[in-house]
Amino acid sequence: MYKLVLIRHGESTWNLENRFTGWTDVELTPTGVSQAMSAGKLLKAEGYEFDIAYTSVLKRAIHTLNHCLDEMDRSWLPVVKDWRLNERHYGGLQGLDKGETAKKYGDAQVLVWRRSYDTPPPALEANDPRGQRQDIRYAKLSPEQIPLTECLKDTVARVLPFWNEAMAPAIKSGQRIVIAAHGNSIRALIKYLDNISDADIVGLNIPNGIPLVYELDADLKPIKSYYLGDAEAAAKAAAAVASQGKA
Amino acid sequence: MYKLVLIRHGESTWNLENRFTGWTDVELTPTGVSQAMSAGKLLKAEGYEFDIAYTSVLKRAIHTLNHCLDEMDRSWLPVVKDWRLNERHYGGLQGLDKGETAKKYGDAQVLVWRRSYDTPPPALEANDPRGQRQDIRYAKLSPEQIPLTECLKDTVARVLPFWNEAMAPAIKSGQRIVIAAHGNSIRALIKYLDNISDADIVGLNIPNGIPLVYELDADLKPIKSYYLGDAEAAAKAAAAVASQGKA
Repeated sequence: MYKLVLIRHGESTWNLENRFTGWTDVELTPTGVSQAMSAGKLLKAEGYEFDIAYTSVLKRAIHTLNHCLDEMDRSWLPVVKDWRLNERHYGGLQGLDKGETAKKYGDAQVLVWRRSYDTPPPALEANDPRGQRQDIRYAKLSPEQIPLTECLKDTVARVLPFWNEAMAPAIKSGQRIVIAAHGNSIRALIKYLDNISDADIVGLNIPNGIPLVYELDADLKPIKSYYLGDAEAAAKAAAAVASQGKA
Repeated sequence: MYKLVLIRHGESTWNLENRFTGWTDVELTPTGVSQAMSAGKLLKAEGYEFDIAYTSVLKRAIHTLNHCLDEMDRSWLPVVKDWRLNERHYGGLQGLDKGETAKKYGDAQVLVWRRSYDTPPPALEANDPRGQRQDIRYAKLSPEQIPLTECLKDTVARVLPFWNEAMAPAIKSGQRIVIAAHGNSIRALIKYLDNISDADIVGLNIPNGIPLVYELDADLKPIKSYYLGDAEAAAKAAAAVASQGKA
């Protein structure tokens, strides 16, 4: 039996400002730093050990992981940073206020953009300064690999190859792994692991900075999953995420 | 022509307390954090870009690198952490006050332990709690690979294979690399690059947190090397390092 730990980054400046973030590289707030440190303290208190850590190329996830590992006194662990764990690209919504957007387009449209499995938000223009095609961290990707918008299905389509190529083999070889990522890259992975339908995934929300443990069988099928620490607090935090896109 | 950047970690708590550190995993002081951030600001201002970063498995070097990359907005760069970039193991001196040790054994003996090329300090007992044989970060090494003391020659003997296996091929393949490491792992590398004699290496001191640039030819032979920023300040800082082991 294997264990896998998933952590959504701590609160970011744009979580706090209630803006759509996507691939915009915003920093953690002081609350986000505390959440990351708490996650590390919890993992340490529960005796978790890891052999390798995975994160995205966005600093809110990287710093969450760093603070978490520092608290565990495991700063020395190998860390793999990969763009395929990035947040879902939010296209033309990136930078917009979630509440304002809901007022303008209606709660229903925003819920579709936020949570529909296969309807992406409006795409950015290729030269939009909010896009990433000029960002040197993606210089090795082809332009088509750098999204101008994504629905969750698109995110699944890039997260899963990374899972299959890197993370699943690592787990099967006995490496204990932790993944510090984003609401939607984690939802993409959970949809696959728990075999959640396209319809049901809409209702799944991931709270910031609370370690989510998956116990997996030899075929990496989930036996059970649970948040570490206060289960009620985790449920409340997830509900707060769900309500962010309402006018 | 290639460029290589070396950075010794910022001031650590034991630099400040003037204690022999070696493989003891002490944290940066607030001054050390500032030095690391200044190094990042300098590199950014001078337009340096990197493809990969290397550091040790000791947090004063890892955190120096992290702060430096954060200032450059390059937190997303791949980082390789390897024990072979660790500080020289200081054996039985680890934890002792440098001034007190000099009073007890004399300046000359301490200079030999600090700077002699091939005379190691007294070895730790294998089960000394100041040693690393129980430290899980070294669990994949054989006991013989985990030193009980080292002279600089021993440090060279582990730094160079890592240079030859990982860093030199990376540079030759066109990767721009930065190394955040320690006084003696950097001295080991410089001794090799600049072909410094066993006698002359005694006089070489590396200041904390100042980027040291090597320009290398196609065979990785140095064309020139220089500290970024205020050259006089770098020289002064190096002289301060040299005087640490005096009563």
